[in-house]
Amino acid sequence: MRQTIAFIIVLFTFSVVHSQDLQSPDKNLRLHFALGEQGVPVYDLIYKTKEVIRTSKLGIQLVKDTSLTQNFSISDTTRRSFDETWKPVWGEVKEIRNHYNELAVTLTQSTTKRVMIIRFRLFNDGLGFRYEFPEQKNLAYFIIKEERTQFALAGDHKAFWLPGDYDTQEYSTVTSNLSEVRGKMKEAVTPNASQTTFSPTGLQTPLMMKSKDGLYINIHEAALLNYSCMSLNLDDKNFILESVLTPDAVGNKGFMQAPTQTPWRTVIVSDKAGEILESKLVLNLNEPTKYANTSWIKPIKYVGVWWEMITGKSSWSYTNLENIQLDKVDYTKTPPNGTHGANTKHVKEYIDFAAQHGFEAVLVEGWNTGWEDWFGKTKDYVFDFVTPYPDFDVKELHQYAAGKNVKIIMHHETSSSVRNYERHMDTAYKFMVENGYNAVKSGYVGNILPIGEHHYGQWLINHYQYAIEKAADYKIMVNAHEAVRPTGLHRTYPNLLANEAARGTEYESFGGNNPDHTTILPFTRLIGGPMDYTPGIFETKIIKYNPKNNSWVRSTLARQLALYVTMYSPLQMAADLPETYNKFLDAFQFIKDVAVDWDDTKVLEAEPGDYITIARKAKGTNNWFIGSTCDENGRESNISFSFLDPGKKYIATIYADKANAHYDTNPQAYEIRKVIVTSKSKLKQFSAPGGGYAVSVMEPKTEADLKGLKSLK
Amino acid sequence: MRQTIAFIIVLFTFSVVHSQDLQSPDKNLRLHFALGEQGVPVYDLIYKTKEVIRTSKLGIQLVKDTSLTQNFSISDTTRRSFDETWKPVWGEVKEIRNHYNELAVTLTQSTTKRVMIIRFRLFNDGLGFRYEFPEQKNLAYFIIKEERTQFALAGDHKAFWLPGDYDTQEYSTVTSNLSEVRGKMKEAVTPNASQTTFSPTGLQTPLMMKSKDGLYINIHEAALLNYSCMSLNLDDKNFILESVLTPDAVGNKGFMQAPTQTPWRTVIVSDKAGEILESKLVLNLNEPTKYANTSWIKPIKYVGVWWEMITGKSSWSYTNLENIQLDKVDYTKTPPNGTHGANTKHVKEYIDFAAQHGFEAVLVEGWNTGWEDWFGKTKDYVFDFVTPYPDFDVKELHQYAAGKNVKIIMHHETSSSVRNYERHMDTAYKFMVENGYNAVKSGYVGNILPIGEHHYGQWLINHYQYAIEKAADYKIMVNAHEAVRPTGLHRTYPNLLANEAARGTEYESFGGNNPDHTTILPFTRLIGGPMDYTPGIFETKIIKYNPKNNSWVRSTLARQLALYVTMYSPLQMAADLPETYNKFLDAFQFIKDVAVDWDDTKVLEAEPGDYITIARKAKGTNNWFIGSTCDENGRESNISFSFLDPGKKYIATIYADKANAHYDTNPQAYEIRKVIVTSKSKLKQFSAPGGGYAVSVMEPKTEADLKGLKSLK
Repeated sequence: MRQTIAFIIVLFTFSVVHSQDLQSPDKNLRLHFALGEQGVPVYDLIYKTKEVIRTSKLGIQLVKDTSLTQNFSISDTTRRSFDETWKPVWGEVKEIRNHYNELAVTLTQSTTKRVMIIRFRLFNDGLGFRYEFPEQKNLAYFIIKEERTQFALAGDHKAFWLPGDYDTQEYSTVTSNLSEVRGKMKEAVTPNASQTTFSPTGLQTPLMMKSKDGLYINIHEAALLNYSCMSLNLDDKNFILESVLTPDAVGNKGFMQAPTQTPWRTVIVSDKAGEILESKLVLNLNEPTKYANTSWIKPIKYVGVWWEMITGKSSWSYTNLENIQLDKVDYTKTPPNGTHGANTKHVKEYIDFAAQHGFEAVLVEGWNTGWEDWFGKTKDYVFDFVTPYPDFDVKELHQYAAGKNVKIIMHHETSSSVRNYERHMDTAYKFMVENGYNAVKSGYVGNILPIGEHHYGQWLINHYQYAIEKAADYKIMVNAHEAVRPTGLHRTYPNLLANEAARGTEYESFGGNNPDHTTILPFTRLIGGPMDYTPGIFETKIIKYNPKNNSWVRSTLARQLALYVTMYSPLQMAADLPETYNKFLDAFQFIKDVAVDWDDTKVLEAEPGDYITIARKAKGTNNWFIGSTCDENGRESNISFSFLDPGKKYIATIYADKANAHYDTNPQAYEIRKVIVTSKSKLKQFSAPGGGYAVSVMEPKTEADLKGLKSLK
Repeated sequence: MRQTIAFIIVLFTFSVVHSQDLQSPDKNLRLHFALGEQGVPVYDLIYKTKEVIRTSKLGIQLVKDTSLTQNFSISDTTRRSFDETWKPVWGEVKEIRNHYNELAVTLTQSTTKRVMIIRFRLFNDGLGFRYEFPEQKNLAYFIIKEERTQFALAGDHKAFWLPGDYDTQEYSTVTSNLSEVRGKMKEAVTPNASQTTFSPTGLQTPLMMKSKDGLYINIHEAALLNYSCMSLNLDDKNFILESVLTPDAVGNKGFMQAPTQTPWRTVIVSDKAGEILESKLVLNLNEPTKYANTSWIKPIKYVGVWWEMITGKSSWSYTNLENIQLDKVDYTKTPPNGTHGANTKHVKEYIDFAAQHGFEAVLVEGWNTGWEDWFGKTKDYVFDFVTPYPDFDVKELHQYAAGKNVKIIMHHETSSSVRNYERHMDTAYKFMVENGYNAVKSGYVGNILPIGEHHYGQWLINHYQYAIEKAADYKIMVNAHEAVRPTGLHRTYPNLLANEAARGTEYESFGGNNPDHTTILPFTRLIGGPMDYTPGIFETKIIKYNPKNNSWVRSTLARQLALYVTMYSPLQMAADLPETYNKFLDAFQFIKDVAVDWDDTKVLEAEPGDYITIARKAKGTNNWFIGSTCDENGRESNISFSFLDPGKKYIATIYADKANAHYDTNPQAYEIRKVIVTSKSKLKQFSAPGGGYAVSVMEPKTEADLKGLKSLK
């Protein structure tokens, strides 16, 4: 009898004090928060009638200290609604609406009197929540052993996943049901210059999933600052994902000082795949820009001395020395290898090409000393970031490029010798300013020094941020490769133009990306922010550049054009060689025309792993650009131009696969046609296997421009 | 029969090819190098007829790779003699003779074709040797698992030892036979802010020993650059010491790139204790200075706002806040605690005192924001090194001090957040230059960040060196506390004026140093370089300053004066409070008179653990200063003034313990007498338990100065 009474009391307490609900502005999403047994915080999430997240635990496990995982009571709750529209410095759209209902639950731990707030923001397109640790007497410094955030899924979803890893995201996406992850893990873990997997069911975020009943779910994080990057571990019996933070060298996962908070944990959800792509939830969960002046931040379309090295046609290094010490090597006394790409004459050719075709900039890699012996050696003093090879004339090239209104993009490969980079950073940035550079591509290839730290640990997260903010002091834009995948920080720090943090086009020369790669990345990697994917490869058989390299690009030429639209980035490279573009100037015209900053974006078709078709309106114009990418099966795309201004005529130039095109056997079979389109036009367009198409939709300058053109039927 | 033949061949090969001998210039020391079984390099060392080092193995164990420990043959040997005299920028003597015979043995490993040179330098006062890895095809990068250098001792010597530790040398020296180390280890490991012991028989260097047959042996290292600090592990059955390098976070002990070399391993040996103190072997094994201009480097005698905080009389912090974030705290809105030492008014009093008594500088600790919450928190952004507390006016104090020809010494406590220090270093040094500071005391209290790295690991060794060389770019002198113990690098980088790296006077306020502490340190810690010991404590009962602090100084007042001579350093503090010195101005006169740079040094008496008496000739003068320190037993010192110029009369002022003085019960009982001395004078002088005496020996300016003085009898 006493048990019954106790049960009733618990139920009563539970329903009155221990439970809170929250709805999204459109009421499609419903969050339920409660304290479970032993005062464990739990939540669940429902979209319309479907379970997105089943009852899942929340909490933080601490080193030494009492963990913040149980014995909580709710000591306060606050609610608010928020609705504002803000303008990004650059982006896919001109304005972004930030509209959510918020619930902040203040939890007090009975045993420690410590207070933790869990703040939920429910948007129409998903959920964000984070842990906050307000200033308080009983909690100042603490060390995280593990974050214990669960995402209990409603079933064995189809997932687009990468192996969980503390050092790299450069894996091919595996598409499988969650129950198949364990069986496919071994094959999924392909070699990388630095990699640390942690579990046979470890997964990375952004993790894209699709439920059997048609829900699209994306789990990621927003505003990763001074905290370790979150991966997920899958309980593949119960389909529960749980957070796994990246450890430091001795296993600690985060050094915290209250007042502070974790990054936001995000669940984007919709029954339409396209809405996942259109979600601005991750950006909205980041803070407005910290910079008073952002006029120096500009999107960039560029070419570069890069693909020729990636393919093995030329070299980063100036000599064939095998073991050098940067402070001792004398390049003037060493015979050049004759294959060095970044020489003054050759860079001038790129500058000429950029100027001729209207590109803002030329990236030059391999310009600085040290490339003979830079990788995988745990070498501390590996580069100094300011000393050019003897055949690269910094001053002359600065003058030459400036004369043609072209910028050179700096390259800072750190070889993950991060302390060395920080030691030289001020000098390196100053050198850039003095020599006319306003953007840097940085790289973190290989294991982090000091050994034991990881690319995605708090120590490095802190470093990447330091590099971005210090760059801003010098009005420098950053494109960081091999750094942590983005989490929307470009809202706050818009000089972070792009990251790599996935398999980019370079892997087409390192064995190849899957044909469906670009139908997945916008649903996964790009949820956090832009990628410097470096599309535009017209010569897909690498052997044409390097007889020793049998790799080939799993894409048709037409699809390469589409990527400038489907793979959103304010930083877009035309990655192939000028000599190749000169052979295909009609197709190259699309790359010349396409914008890198946008007033509007419409996802016209989308299914992860199968196809994506997107239309974007170029910044400050009435011109639209459409890109469509598909998987290895090819397909027929059906789109409407209803996004155009009604009543106006536009000239659409369609760059498409020929009927006999194929990403392997006939990649360069494209056709270009010009037609007149209006907002009532509809396009039925074939894409070859591994193919796609691109369309520029331009307002005619005069009626005469329309002459001779037929309307799209 | 076949065995016998083989034996003969081995013997033959051994004697002709596998063995090399070397003698010191005076022939007292004999080194024997050989290849032992399986091509293992071994050496032994004999002093006159006594074994110093018995046959001991040499080699380097590698991670993954074939270790460089065996299968060697001698492929080359070179010999040379070297004899030069050089002048240190500052030092104990005007000129230093660097005189040695050298043997370099080139070893080739049969299995790998790798080459390693072991270079021996045999001086009259000991041995130095190191491993060198010349440029070669088969050895470029390698990772050290452990250095396997043995020092096989001839017996169960008496040792003056500290527990081996990767993070601190702030232990009390234990005096015991080697066989007693294990039994005394637990008691020896007293608590420290950062400590990592590694073995129940682990020992630190410099390790001072005395054999039963009267040999004094000191083992240390010289020129520790870009390598891990060496400790020793004792095989206490066989009395073999073996090198133990400090690991990184995951256990690696050194990242090497050929051509390179290890630091020198040093064995100083003599049958006279005083010759250990006079040895310049460690300095001679370092390179000449790297600086073209050293005119900005000057020894310093200083006072400071320091002891009052160490005793707890005042505070480093400006408020009583308990948890601060440097970028958020607003000191203007926080009530001061009223105990802040480094306030403008108070610092001016120190400047006045320094000017009045002829001190070059005033150290000020606690001047900058962050001291409320700086220690033991794994706090990354702990100090910014440029922001003063509201009550410390940098510009006003700069002007005030400059007007009195006094410098303020900067203080950079890093809290071992080393990355944070490096990030701010340029700005911090610039700030110093702009505000008239030319010397910095740096500190590394607490565990190194990132956690897992150690104070004495290669990562930090590299950092300390970076800090020194970067300071030189700004013409700044460095006094690094809690950094690695010195290894003679001040020859090469003479702006490294001093280090702490042992229990300094501060420990007298933290429970006390042993009464014999200062009779040992010159034989141990000071073998590597000067210590900022901060002597001159006249008020030995700390409770007089802070009613809550029962610590007391284990020294008489007279002995505190002696330390300015016995504890050689170009940086000497008068550490006590001006108010106390004002009560003892007659004794204080010695501190005012004593030099901090010397033309000559004579060790008059010495026995480690018992007593040390040293006479030094002040730079550019004919004045001498004598200091004598003894252990808890007191003693009678007998010295001769034969080092004085013959035929001249000098005025000796003798600052001595009274007959009833005692380091505990009557420490301030001193007496001062003035007498005339010549080169024929002899002094018989009493020292109390824990006592000592000091003597200034000045040339009279005129005959009149001698009037009324009696000759020393």
